[in-house]
Amino acid sequence: MLQGKVLIAQGGGPTAVINQSLVGAVQEARRLGAEGVYGALHGVNGIVNENLVDLAQETDANLERVAQTPCSALGSTRDKPDLAYCQEIFKVLKAHGIGTFFYIGGNDSSDALRIVAEEAAKADTPMRCVHIPKTIDNDLMVNDHTPGFPSAAKFVASAFAGVNLDNRALPGVYVGIVMGRHAGFLTAASALARKYADDGPHLIYLPERTFDMDKFTTDVKAAYDKHGRCVIAASEGIHDSEGTPIVTKLAKEVEKDAHGNVQLSGTGALADLLTDAIKSNTDISRVRGDTFGYLQRSFLGCVSEIDQVEAREVGVRAVQFAAWAGRDGTVTIHRVGDYAADYRLNALEDVAAKTKVMDDAMIDAGGADVTPAFIDYARPLIGAAGAEAFRLRAPAVDKILGK
Amino acid sequence: MLQGKVLIAQGGGPTAVINQSLVGAVQEARRLGAEGVYGALHGVNGIVNENLVDLAQETDANLERVAQTPCSALGSTRDKPDLAYCQEIFKVLKAHGIGTFFYIGGNDSSDALRIVAEEAAKADTPMRCVHIPKTIDNDLMVNDHTPGFPSAAKFVASAFAGVNLDNRALPGVYVGIVMGRHAGFLTAASALARKYADDGPHLIYLPERTFDMDKFTTDVKAAYDKHGRCVIAASEGIHDSEGTPIVTKLAKEVEKDAHGNVQLSGTGALADLLTDAIKSNTDISRVRGDTFGYLQRSFLGCVSEIDQVEAREVGVRAVQFAAWAGRDGTVTIHRVGDYAADYRLNALEDVAAKTKVMDDAMIDAGGADVTPAFIDYARPLIGAAGAEAFRLRAPAVDKILGK
Repeated sequence: MLQGKVLIAQGGGPTAVINQSLVGAVQEARRLGAEGVYGALHGVNGIVNENLVDLAQETDANLERVAQTPCSALGSTRDKPDLAYCQEIFKVLKAHGIGTFFYIGGNDSSDALRIVAEEAAKADTPMRCVHIPKTIDNDLMVNDHTPGFPSAAKFVASAFAGVNLDNRALPGVYVGIVMGRHAGFLTAASALARKYADDGPHLIYLPERTFDMDKFTTDVKAAYDKHGRCVIAASEGIHDSEGTPIVTKLAKEVEKDAHGNVQLSGTGALADLLTDAIKSNTDISRVRGDTFGYLQRSFLGCVSEIDQVEAREVGVRAVQFAAWAGRDGTVTIHRVGDYAADYRLNALEDVAAKTKVMDDAMIDAGGADVTPAFIDYARPLIGAAGAEAFRLRAPAVDKILGK
Repeated sequence: MLQGKVLIAQGGGPTAVINQSLVGAVQEARRLGAEGVYGALHGVNGIVNENLVDLAQETDANLERVAQTPCSALGSTRDKPDLAYCQEIFKVLKAHGIGTFFYIGGNDSSDALRIVAEEAAKADTPMRCVHIPKTIDNDLMVNDHTPGFPSAAKFVASAFAGVNLDNRALPGVYVGIVMGRHAGFLTAASALARKYADDGPHLIYLPERTFDMDKFTTDVKAAYDKHGRCVIAASEGIHDSEGTPIVTKLAKEVEKDAHGNVQLSGTGALADLLTDAIKSNTDISRVRGDTFGYLQRSFLGCVSEIDQVEAREVGVRAVQFAAWAGRDGTVTIHRVGDYAADYRLNALEDVAAKTKVMDDAMIDAGGADVTPAFIDYARPLIGAAGAEAFRLRAPAVDKILGK
């Protein structure tokens, strides 16, 4: 059964359903009679600083409500543990009798867990380590998709469905910037906003392809000439042929996180850069840009039901694997029906610090759209349509004055 | 009863419920046996260009679905009719036998309708003109509030509830820029996101008060020192003591619309300016800014039920007033219970081209927050809470290593 006390932590960027995984793990650990169920505040940072809470002393009623609340309830961290950091983690885990450690996070978090697991093995400390996947970027290897992505995709699709209607009412060019450093899945989800043949986004720019400013303005002009308006979805991670993010071409100073990544979110610079390029290189006067920013991963009330169920499942399954699989690993999601999912335990190395990007088959040959294969892949994940856009169909009145 | 054929148009910025008003007016005009029910495409622009559609030839089933769809289904315009423009409008109205004209819009649109009504009187052309209110800015005189505001307020509150959770999980400073040129109601709605005592937004900057950059960075530092994090809501219309919008201090060129207003939305410049000021004047490293942009008025699936009902009501009541009140005017919303609303017909002059701003009693004396009076005013409008944020309450585990 479960070895020692259980400790659960949440790392990386929050999602709409990350607390479903937390609550699934907590409740299953309690059900399986774990000798203790602790949570670390702010991920691995809470471990090294011994900031732990006793999750055994939570009611199921409150846990269920927390599960419905977006963003890491235990707090998160961007710390990336190195060897010394991991040794500090051990001291705390050992002192508190922790024998089973769950870390809910993305590929950076799974890599941290991999290091902890290795250090545990070296130190001959029995420690069952299981990674619980989450990331709105949808960029974990092996997984069909990752918890958090479907809800963020629903937000992006709902946002583009709205701005497409807005742009249709007051025509012009609209650029929406979507999160995603290396993987374009979330930006691609903007295509789920389309219903009628001329609906936007009319152009979609993904980090899987090189971004060329001249081609961009030519694309925009062509789409505008065709539709009398143009809605564009662009990933914050779009980059030139050398891999340099387009946003850094404007930024005065470049901010990097603990993982050495250039900070892309939290600024409207890329949208402004792209709208300025359109204004300078075309004669289109009404050009607007928005950066969806943190709303994509935190907006209260925009969640995919399938995502909620699956995020809960990976938390529960992680505890079951820890109890009975006899090995460390990461819980992975596999598509086994249209639509149905199943969960497996893979080695931490299979996902740690690796990044999955979109298949070529999901990207249009022109480089500025997705294919029907992506729509088929993503559509079931956002679940029930919820709100949907409808148009008037009233026929034109015959002109009398011939205007 | 209804005079001549009925024409309905939509002007200004779209809202989540503007089609409820359209459909209410169309169905009531049909029910009252109007000899024709036309719609103008893209507001007054569609009239002068004789781009009309025959709304009698719409099914109720489709109209009901359009009513649930955000953004002006007939299309909108920013055109501001002058005398010559109005003479063109008359030619078209007269040629098509229009005797009753409804314009759904804000204070700019109501002013356009006022000019049309005056020109009709001068030209001795019988023309019943009724304005149907809508604006997310909530800045129409006489009205307790305006259709479109409650849904946009719900979006802003949901967004801040989410970013507050995100900011709590990964502490730092977050600035969210909200629409609203002169009136701070929508920015103030961010306060509806608060539940627990230390929830953000911790600071709220409204266009009703002069914005001082030094006071701002001092406020931010104090809030950050107190909470270890800080969430800020700021109106896009914040300005210095001379009334100059703060955003123009950075913009290379200033874009103005047909009404002479400086373009504030569609750029992330203000958020970036404020986050840069915080980074330069404090030692806080994690500072992020988002501009909510067009999502506030168009996001598919975020709507207040009360707003939907009231937007429908003002459309229906406008037609009833046109049929039986015997005068032109604007439909106004009045609060007659806690919570209940009623509708009256006021003179067009009462709202045309005027702007209502927040009462002093709704603004905190410190100038960076709202009072409970605003919460009491706004809370009923966003309707059922829907999603709500909950926290873990697990007690701390006793430290063993004393870290």
